[in-house]
This record gives sequence, C-alpha cells and structure tokens, in this order.
Amino acid sequence: MRLSQFHLRTTKETPADAELASHKLMLRAGMIRKLASGLYSWSPLGLRVLRKVEAIVREEMNRAGAVELLLPTIQPRELWEETGRWEKFGGQLLKITDRKEQHYCYSPTAEEAITDFARQELSSYKQLPVNFYQIQTKFRDEIRPRFGVMRAREFLMKDAYSFHLDDASLVAEYENMKAAYTRIFTRLGLEFRAVQADSGAIGGDASQEFHVIADSGEDALAFSTASDYAANVEAAIAADPAPRPAASQAMHKVATPTQKTCDAVAELLGITLQQTVKSVAAVTAAGQFVLALVRGDHEVNDIKLGKLEGMADYRLANEAEIVAHLGAQPGFLGPVAPQQAIRVIADRDAAALADFVVGANENGFHLAGVNWGRDLPEPEVADIRNVVAGDRARDGGELKLARGIEVGHVFQLGRQYAQALKATVLDENGKAQVMAMGCYGIGVSRIVAAAIEQNHDEAGIIWPESMAPWQVVVCMINPKNDPAVTAAAQDLVTELQAKGLDVALDDRGLRPGSMFADIELIGIPHRVVVSERGLAAGTFEYRSRRASEAENLDREQLLARLG
Amino acid sequence: MRLSQFHLRTTKETPADAELASHKLMLRAGMIRKLASGLYSWSPLGLRVLRKVEAIVREEMNRAGAVELLLPTIQPRELWEETGRWEKFGGQLLKITDRKEQHYCYSPTAEEAITDFARQELSSYKQLPVNFYQIQTKFRDEIRPRFGVMRAREFLMKDAYSFHLDDASLVAEYENMKAAYTRIFTRLGLEFRAVQADSGAIGGDASQEFHVIADSGEDALAFSTASDYAANVEAAIAADPAPRPAASQAMHKVATPTQKTCDAVAELLGITLQQTVKSVAAVTAAGQFVLALVRGDHEVNDIKLGKLEGMADYRLANEAEIVAHLGAQPGFLGPVAPQQAIRVIADRDAAALADFVVGANENGFHLAGVNWGRDLPEPEVADIRNVVAGDRARDGGELKLARGIEVGHVFQLGRQYAQALKATVLDENGKAQVMAMGCYGIGVSRIVAAAIEQNHDEAGIIWPESMAPWQVVVCMINPKNDPAVTAAAQDLVTELQAKGLDVALDDRGLRPGSMFADIELIGIPHRVVVSERGLAAGTFEYRSRRASEAENLDREQLLARLG
Repeated sequence: MRLSQFHLRTTKETPADAELASHKLMLRAGMIRKLASGLYSWSPLGLRVLRKVEAIVREEMNRAGAVELLLPTIQPRELWEETGRWEKFGGQLLKITDRKEQHYCYSPTAEEAITDFARQELSSYKQLPVNFYQIQTKFRDEIRPRFGVMRAREFLMKDAYSFHLDDASLVAEYENMKAAYTRIFTRLGLEFRAVQADSGAIGGDASQEFHVIADSGEDALAFSTASDYAANVEAAIAADPAPRPAASQAMHKVATPTQKTCDAVAELLGITLQQTVKSVAAVTAAGQFVLALVRGDHEVNDIKLGKLEGMADYRLANEAEIVAHLGAQPGFLGPVAPQQAIRVIADRDAAALADFVVGANENGFHLAGVNWGRDLPEPEVADIRNVVAGDRARDGGELKLARGIEVGHVFQLGRQYAQALKATVLDENGKAQVMAMGCYGIGVSRIVAAAIEQNHDEAGIIWPESMAPWQVVVCMINPKNDPAVTAAAQDLVTELQAKGLDVALDDRGLRPGSMFADIELIGIPHRVVVSERGLAAGTFEYRSRRASEAENLDREQLLARLG
Repeated sequence: MRLSQFHLRTTKETPADAELASHKLMLRAGMIRKLASGLYSWSPLGLRVLRKVEAIVREEMNRAGAVELLLPTIQPRELWEETGRWEKFGGQLLKITDRKEQHYCYSPTAEEAITDFARQELSSYKQLPVNFYQIQTKFRDEIRPRFGVMRAREFLMKDAYSFHLDDASLVAEYENMKAAYTRIFTRLGLEFRAVQADSGAIGGDASQEFHVIADSGEDALAFSTASDYAANVEAAIAADPAPRPAASQAMHKVATPTQKTCDAVAELLGITLQQTVKSVAAVTAAGQFVLALVRGDHEVNDIKLGKLEGMADYRLANEAEIVAHLGAQPGFLGPVAPQQAIRVIADRDAAALADFVVGANENGFHLAGVNWGRDLPEPEVADIRNVVAGDRARDGGELKLARGIEVGHVFQLGRQYAQALKATVLDENGKAQVMAMGCYGIGVSRIVAAAIEQNHDEAGIIWPESMAPWQVVVCMINPKNDPAVTAAAQDLVTELQAKGLDVALDDRGLRPGSMFADIELIGIPHRVVVSERGLAAGTFEYRSRRASEAENLDREQLLARLG
C-alpha cells in the first residue's frame, strides 16, 4: 500500500464538540466524519481498523464453532409484538413506516429475528446446540448520542445467539463464548476484564460483561488482586469483615447540635468515620418501615438492599414517616429504641462494630459507645453496601477500583424469547420442547474507540499491533528524488510484507516533521525511515510508537526487531 | 469445514410464492429465509456465497485503485434536500422520523453522503482523482418486492463514486471501472454483457449497464455477433439498410375494406410484411401533427423518436386530430397527399423501400406501388425503430436478442451532485472548481440470484467455481462407522485444502441418495465420494456438477482433475 494512493487526511485542529480522547483523535486522524447526530462515516483509514477488529471477532467466533449468517436490519413490527418489545424496548427503538403504512423497526438487537429464523430452521434436538452469529449494522436511537462512535446511533455489532435443548448445554456454550471473548480481547491486545453483571437465574454467572479498562470508562469496576474476580461496583462483594471486638465502652448520649452527618459527628468527637454508623430509613412496597445501617464510610447499595426478602421496590422514607417511627428528624436517626417496632438491617461491616456511634433518635443528639446485643437487639445482617477501594476480596486479595468501557456481553437468556415465539424442537421422545437460548454481543465499532481510550498519548493514537491500520509504515525521505532511495524503500516494504507484516509506504513526499506527526497521530506501531543519509550509513531509522527515541539499525537488526 | 457442524437445511418442497428459479432454489437450498415482504435473512449457506461475491468485488475494486470506506445507512433529510432528491427520489426512498422528530432516510444510494464526505475531505486538485467505494446495505421501498433477493427491499450493494478535476480524468476512471467490472464478472464465472444504457452527455458512452444473460431476465438486450457491441433493445442501433431499389410499379389504389393492419393488408395482397409501411400519427408538445413511418414488421421506438428535434414529449394523436389532418380513420393512414401539410418522419428501413404499400387516407383503401420522391416528397429519415433479431449490426455482424439481469452500472455523473452540494477543490491556479463525478454500482446480493438464473437444472443450482459455498464436497459413506473410511475422507479433505481448494466434508451420516441430492441442490461444482467399497478398489467416485455420470478415479487422477 502506497499512502500517496490512499486517502489519508489528518488535521491539527481539535474538534470543538469532542470530549473524549478517542473522539478527538479519531476526528483528527481522519478516521471518521460526522454525517449527522450519532451517524458517522468511516473513512478508508477508519475502516481499515474496523475491519481488523471485525476479522478477529469473526475468526474467533468461527473457531468457537459459531456459524455466521446475516439478518435484515429492517424488521417487522408484528415480530417485535410477539415478544412485547415493540412497546417495551422504549425510545431507542427506531420505528419506521413504509409506503404501504406497514410498521418496522431498525434492529437494535436481533433476538426476535433470530428466534424467528430458528423456529423455521430448527425442528429436532439433533440440530442442537447451534450458535448463529452475525456482524451487522445496528441502530439505537440514543437520546444523547455522544463520544463519536463510542455511543453512536448507527454502529457495528457482532451478535450471536445460541439454541439448546437443555440448560446444561446452554451453560456449556456460555462458557465456550466466555473463552472465545477472552481470546478475542487478548488478540486485540487490550487490557480488559470479564465482569459479573448480575447473579444468574439459570446457572452459575448468567451474565458477564467484558470491559476495556480506561480512565474515561462509564462503568466503575472492582477487581481483585488475587484472582480474576471482577464485578461492577454495584455487584461487587467484599470479604466478610473481621469478627466483632468485645464492647469496651458504656453507651452514652452526646450533644451534636448541628452535626447531621457521620463526617461531622466523627470530627466533633475526634473519632474515625469507621466508628460511626449511618442510618437510612426506607419503606417497603408493603408499607413496612426499615432502617438500613452501613458504616459511616460506606454507601448503601440499592440493588443489594432491594434483593433482600421483602425489599423489592422499596423507597426512601419521607420525613413524616421518619418522625412517626423514630421520633426525630433526619441527621439524628439510629436503631436504638425506636418509637415503634421496626426492621433493622445492618451491613456486615456495621454489624461487626463495637462501641460505635449512631443517631439518638432525638434532635441534636447521638449515642456513642453503642454495642449490638447489649444496647439494642442483634440486627438482621446482610451485604448491603458498595465496595470501596482497598476492601478485602473474598479470594484474599485486595479490591481495586477501575473504570471500564463495556465492549462485550454474554448472557444466558433462558427461554423467554423462545417461549414467546414458540420456538420448539422435538426431543428424543418426539415431544416439543421450548429451546433455551444464550446471547453474546460485541460492540465492534465501539472497540475501536475503547482501544484508543486505553492507548494514546499527546501525539495521538497508539494502536495495539493487531488493530493498527498498518503495523509498519516505511517513511521515505527523498527530496532529491533519488531512485536508490525509492528502490530501497520499496525493497524494504516488499521484504517486510513477505514476513507477513501489514506495511504501508509513505511516499506522499511530505517534509519529515509533517510525515512523522501523521504517522504518530494515526498510531502506527512501527516507523522506519529510509533516507539518503541512512542508506549511506547502511542504516534505517526505527522507532516504536511507544519508545521515546528513534534508533539507527542495520537491515539485519531491523528485521529482527520487526520479527 | 464439517457439514455436521454447519447449519444446512434443504427442503424438497417448492415454495408456493416463488416464481423465478433462483428464488425457488435459494429457498429450497435454505440460502435465504423471508422475514417480511422484500426482507430476507441470509442463512449460513447463503452468506458463504454472498461473501464470496463480495470478496471478488472488493479485490478487484482495490486492484483498480479504488479506496473502501463505509457510509451510514441512515442519512439526514437536509442533505437529500440539497440535491432535491428528498422529494424527487419518489416512493422508493424509505423516510424515517427519529425520536426527536428529525427526518432521515435509509440510503438507497449514496451520491449525497459521499459528496458531503468529499466536500469535507477534498480541498485540492492534488487529492484527485480519487475513487471511494463501499459495500453496504441499501434499502429501496419497492412497491412490489418479488423474486426473492433479485428485487428485495433491503439488499447489499457495492457503490463507488469517483471525483475529478476535469472530464478527461472522469472518462479515464470510467474506462478503468469498466475494465474492473469486466474482470469481476469474468472472475465470477458468469456470462455477461456490458450494455450501452443511453448515449452520453459528457464523453463517449456516459453510461453502461452490466447484465448477466439469463432467459428470465427483465431486460431485452441486443448484441452483435461480430464485436462486443451490446445495448438495451430500446437503445440498440442496427446498420443502415441497403440502398433503395429503383421504382418498378405505378402507384395504384387497392380496396382493403376490413384490412386495418399491415399484416392483414399484406395477406390480402399476397406480399411480404416487409413491403408495407406502418403510419403512426403523433402530436408534438408544440401541437404539430407528425406521421412516423416504420416498415410493417418493425415497431416505433418511443425513446429514439422522442430524441428527434421538436419531438420531446410528443403524444399519440387522437382520432379527431387524425381525421382533421389526413381525412381518414386509423387503419387507412399514409403519408401520401394529406389533407393538411404535415411533418413526415420515416425510419431508415421504411425510407429505403420502393414499391411499398401504405394507407390511402381514405377509409377502406390502401395505396400500393408507392415510391418516395415520385408519389410523395422524400421524407425526413431517422432511426426510429426497435431493432429485431437478425438485423445487421453496424459492425457487420448480426444482431442477436437475449434477456439480461442488470447487476452493474457505470455512469459518468458529471457535476450535478457536486454543484448542488458545492463540492469544490482548488485547482493549480488556486481557483475553486466543482468536481466531476462518476458512480459505479454492483448489486452484490442480486448477483447471487442472477448466477442461479443463468446456472441451474432440475436438480438444483450449478455454481460457478468462484461463487460456490464450497468448491468440493467430500461425501463420506460409512454406515459401519469404519475408522479407515473416516480417516481417508479426512485425509482427502486436508490434501485438497492444501491445494487451495475450499472443501467441506459431508459427515452428516445421511443415506447416499439424500446426501447427493443435497449436494446437487446446493450446487457444489465437484463431488467426491469416499466409501468402504471405493477404498477397497483404491478409487474415489468423482462427479462434476455439470456431468451426467460419476467416474471412479484413483487418488492421482482425482487430484489431477481437481487441480
């Protein structure tokens, strides 16, 4: 590939409306162009990267035994009504009316279409299990499209759907896909984590997300230093706390006239935040008043609390309810001697405290030296808090927090779609059985942006080798149009290509500064300069994108370096 | 590839709603499944073929120097309004309203989007010429989607757009694309013709269509036996007729009381249809009465007639106008002695007649022995007829007629889109110039159907080698599960793959009859059978899809045959 024959168009300007580094750099490198809100054209340069990601995804899906097909982007309303999603999917579903006043949508995902395909194609257990996938354009009508292709409306997605006679087969394929995803993101050269999304209804972890680690990621993740345990902060679980120490203080009331937060109380009393307990008043769907307690340095996790018995759809209590049950106003609440009998749920760490401080249920006062079982009944204990950095993990490691960009999701769907669409096969006994399904998505175009978020510097993008538009660019410096330089550069390109490398020749005739800036901006891993001076010395100037300095290498050294 | 791991699902039933052979066979082979009117899912088998076509198109476009990019399928109304096509494109344009009440369309073609891209990316003549292409899903809201993927609403198209400073560069790239298309259809193994669509406004033939020849094709084509001349029947031009013979008869009136057609008159008089002249009365947009004359065995070509000076938007005359100008009713009209002065246009072949027969402008009578220049003035002469099979071509060959399926189109667009969207570059003198454009389309998914129309028999599809899902299928007949048969079959597959062939192993365990029927139906070019009996004899059974009989070949013969 000669760059003079390739349409390359970089700019120095940082686009005004771009916030994320990846968005800015993709525009500056000329990888994408905005056509309209959330709609991007992929330039030749951008498409090269997109296709490299696509190819790796395809190879690994094939290797994992999945079979590729292609579903229409436009899908009929009737099908989406069979699963109820025509209404339930919400505003992201782009609805379309054709010239005959028939209704369609632009597929944002394809459970309906693939299950329709499967109910026509699959009739016997002998055809199972099977995993169909496609790499196809999707559309989600985001309210606020932003961050370039990171959250575009039209995007490229790999979506796979597996069909099974029984749950065991589904779980096996789910594990197979997790392994395939791990190979995909490893081959892409990205730092990533497989993250528990939510505990599962079918078997084991029924859903995992794959995140590319990047400071700008939208999701907060927790992972252990001792194993591959990783979870969304909302779902992460820390180890049980150390056993509760013995009580050493008598309970006593302290005046805290203006101290309504644990921070303020701790400061007033000269104790650590970890000795205080925060009380959150809630009301269940059945109308029961509940006090949820976490240590002063912790936060209640709504999802965990909501999963406890009777707590589904709980809400925070209003002031009238609080006063009626506790006799005090927010800021001075606690579990000791409420006005009325209440349910008290303590987080494991709050339950493990001795001599702690809580609100006194009396405006302007807290209680100190409080101890469970002595000053108040032992509470109901549960994990109801968000993990924090430094928590001990259940595997003995330490929990670290990081931010991630979700680029993949594997999910045990179960039978909801197959049931709704009556997708059955005959089992060994000739009986119709609703198939179990899994689904497995990868955001192909989002990976391109996520990779840049993880890998860039002031000069531009730093592509992992497997995603780079070219692994090597040979830059030709030849102001005198010396045929020897041209020939040497072309020879080198040919030789490197013969080694299986994806190589371009920069023969655009730019001055070295502009040429090098372009090559750095577009993130080429390896730059080699062929010049008259170098040829005279028998050397090529080589620079790795991640190195701070260039080196002069002879041919043999260069080839060894690029091996 | 093991077919037991591949989702293959053929059916014996011929689908009720399918008319064309390709539609029937694609459904029976399980290549496609209908999702809704004009919307088809491509099964794994179908997608293999589609991807093979796509790959050949891509390779040849790249070889021709075009650069691939990817434009969004959803495009904003504002852009389409800049060229006026938001309204002008008509009902095929699928219009979409998003959640913010903004208007978009699903791209049926991408002149607007690519010109928008170009006006942002291209600023200097130094960047020209450039040819951008994409292989992307398109949508046209056909009133009557039919024939499966032949005329689907959602389809896969390769569309390329070139940009130029001047017309000469456009013409050169147009020729380059014509050559690339010829390579593409040649590599696809299809019988095809490049056909003049219409004469051009810019340079040479400003538009050509590429047609796959097939009896079921929608378009009637004429082509010469002596050169690569080919044209739509409407646009085809025959050679000039032989010079007019000398007059040998006197003009005389003959009674033709009920003979209102040339056929009837010729039968009554015992002459050939070629001695009669048909008169078609027309009125121009300016209100002038015109008599267009063609030989009795020919038909007036509206397009050719409409291109003559003053004839744009002409209409057929009504009876009152005819009677007023000629004094007779239709069936007895002619150019001799009209009531009022009229314009007479004679087709070249009608003008080359001597002693011919025309209506007498008197009800119930014709004139015979009529001669130009003697009995009436010499007419205005032009080519205003459709060619017929057997016409002499201008290159000296014979014109043959065939039917074709349009699968490609190359077009010199000129500057209309660039003008409308103000896509300019600076020329060598720093002056802004509107770019000239070419566009070049290929119906990728339609090619699959067209290939089947051209290549099939009662047993099913007959793929050209380059498009086949697999070139070779090795069928294993192994009812006793003999490991030697399995090993021999697998060895053979490996050996053939090493030769670069795309090979599948049919290890589904079907009975030979069903297995062979499937392999024929899905159109595999080469079938090899490995069986216990064959191994004992040291032979493989080989059958070409086009051969009527199988042959027993030893390994060496087989490998030579498949070389």
